[in-house]
Amino acid sequence: MIQKLIARIQETGAPIAVGLDPQMKFIPQALLEDAKREHHDNLLGEDELETAAEAVWRFNREIIDAVHDLVPAVKPQIAMYEQLGIPGIAAFWKTVRYCHEKQLIVIGDVKRGDIGSTSAAYAQAHLGRVNLDGMDLSIFGEDFCTVNPYLGSDGVKPFVDVCNAQDKGIFVLVKTSNPSSGEFQDVKTADGRPLYELVGEKVNEWGRDSMDGSYSNVGAVVGATYPEQGAALRKQMPHAYILVPGYGAQGGRGKDLVHFFNEDGLGAIVNSSRGIIAAYTQDAYRHFGPDRFAEAARAAVIDMKEDIAGALRGR
Amino acid sequence: MIQKLIARIQETGAPIAVGLDPQMKFIPQALLEDAKREHHDNLLGEDELETAAEAVWRFNREIIDAVHDLVPAVKPQIAMYEQLGIPGIAAFWKTVRYCHEKQLIVIGDVKRGDIGSTSAAYAQAHLGRVNLDGMDLSIFGEDFCTVNPYLGSDGVKPFVDVCNAQDKGIFVLVKTSNPSSGEFQDVKTADGRPLYELVGEKVNEWGRDSMDGSYSNVGAVVGATYPEQGAALRKQMPHAYILVPGYGAQGGRGKDLVHFFNEDGLGAIVNSSRGIIAAYTQDAYRHFGPDRFAEAARAAVIDMKEDIAGALRGR
Repeated sequence: MIQKLIARIQETGAPIAVGLDPQMKFIPQALLEDAKREHHDNLLGEDELETAAEAVWRFNREIIDAVHDLVPAVKPQIAMYEQLGIPGIAAFWKTVRYCHEKQLIVIGDVKRGDIGSTSAAYAQAHLGRVNLDGMDLSIFGEDFCTVNPYLGSDGVKPFVDVCNAQDKGIFVLVKTSNPSSGEFQDVKTADGRPLYELVGEKVNEWGRDSMDGSYSNVGAVVGATYPEQGAALRKQMPHAYILVPGYGAQGGRGKDLVHFFNEDGLGAIVNSSRGIIAAYTQDAYRHFGPDRFAEAARAAVIDMKEDIAGALRGR
Repeated sequence: MIQKLIARIQETGAPIAVGLDPQMKFIPQALLEDAKREHHDNLLGEDELETAAEAVWRFNREIIDAVHDLVPAVKPQIAMYEQLGIPGIAAFWKTVRYCHEKQLIVIGDVKRGDIGSTSAAYAQAHLGRVNLDGMDLSIFGEDFCTVNPYLGSDGVKPFVDVCNAQDKGIFVLVKTSNPSSGEFQDVKTADGRPLYELVGEKVNEWGRDSMDGSYSNVGAVVGATYPEQGAALRKQMPHAYILVPGYGAQGGRGKDLVHFFNEDGLGAIVNSSRGIIAAYTQDAYRHFGPDRFAEAARAAVIDMKEDIAGALRGR
């Protein structure tokens, strides 16, 4: 799977994932009103949840239509769908399917991780297939998902097994982009190394039997907001693709990102969520207005692509 | 919320949560056939997923009917539902609602945890309420949920905020029950303490402003399979209720559990999943047969209650 992602990155020239994290506050009022009016006949459950989920789906579809030719991948954050209950989860599922129709690779940002049999269930839900009554079914059908390593190898390996069986991939949380990520991840261990380096070492180990070309289907998450750690982890995990959140709204910039890439210009894919899907709310793109939020997203992707390419040229 | 749990533990005399983790292999064939035959008219989507989810729901309902007067709480593991897609998530939702009708407290074993705004979305999904179009809606509506601490305080605090606002509770993963939990959780830090102790220290800090009587609404998960660490963590976190997985099928026994309790006989709630819901597959309860799986579950709860009570009496 990582080779499919690399091929799409090379075709588009954009090592970028668009984060489809549609918080309700990003959705223009007019779109919400349309969803409310036009969707009203099909309601199954609670009106407000159904309407909100329909609006999220329509919002995503417009963003996807506007950017699908520019980027290789999207990263929907499932929490934003889960908070809308069953209609929200249905919008997540529809979004994954629609992205696949548009040839986009889908990184499910689910951050699952549990004890063995439970991680196996999550891995089947998001990456694998479930065998029921003789039928072999895909459930949510993402191509990659993110995995939390706190439970250790037996919480991660069921995901790796599914990656190997179904040609899928994972990104394991190593050093996250948030302000307090250091509380545990940076803790100095008795041998002087921070914890995230131990996790990085395990990422290498977990990915050893999942090589796909010169990269492994087992990658890592390292936040753009920690460029020094990114540089160290890049060296430590030469075969791990790094998913880099934290660009844009969280503070990361192109120049912070160069050390996340290998000399071959590969090795990292940078995510931006709010910075793209809510671009129309930012000074630089406000002139598009809420009705043209998807065009604003397209403009933000083009600028982000140039920011990263410029930084890589200049290194 | 923790006082509600304590009151129900005292009423039932059972510091026990029944783990509603219905793997398909635990569901008796006859129940599956019934679900297939009787549910066929109502199918919305893929037959097999709908049928499997219906079977899970019926299985749960029979277990709940059989044990609801004996125990204070249930702990559904959402992965087992997520692997059945949208129909599975709907079965999770129906299960939570039915448990509430039966006065059971619901601990959603979701192990969520992310950066701040995303954790806030998860917290709203599982514990809180979402405001949409002027309506204040409960989504999945659990009473407690489990939280993964790897991202640090800003990943956990949004859950604590919801606990404080809505009188809910969380159990933070400190030392999990699985064989490889030590890989990161036991890592010796530079000051000689294992990482789980640092997490325990943070649990105290996060729970300080969430006191409800002599316990906090911020509790911890510590596996029955690590009794020594359990004893140390019990002392370290005097106000944290401990959710103890790993009893029964994972190897924990009553005598291993006594140190998870405080002198007041409170402070811990022990979960058993397979050991109860799949009791009919075990030697001790096989005589019930698959048709009487719910009676077998009831017998297993009664035995577990006695095992724990005996161990607590004998300490």
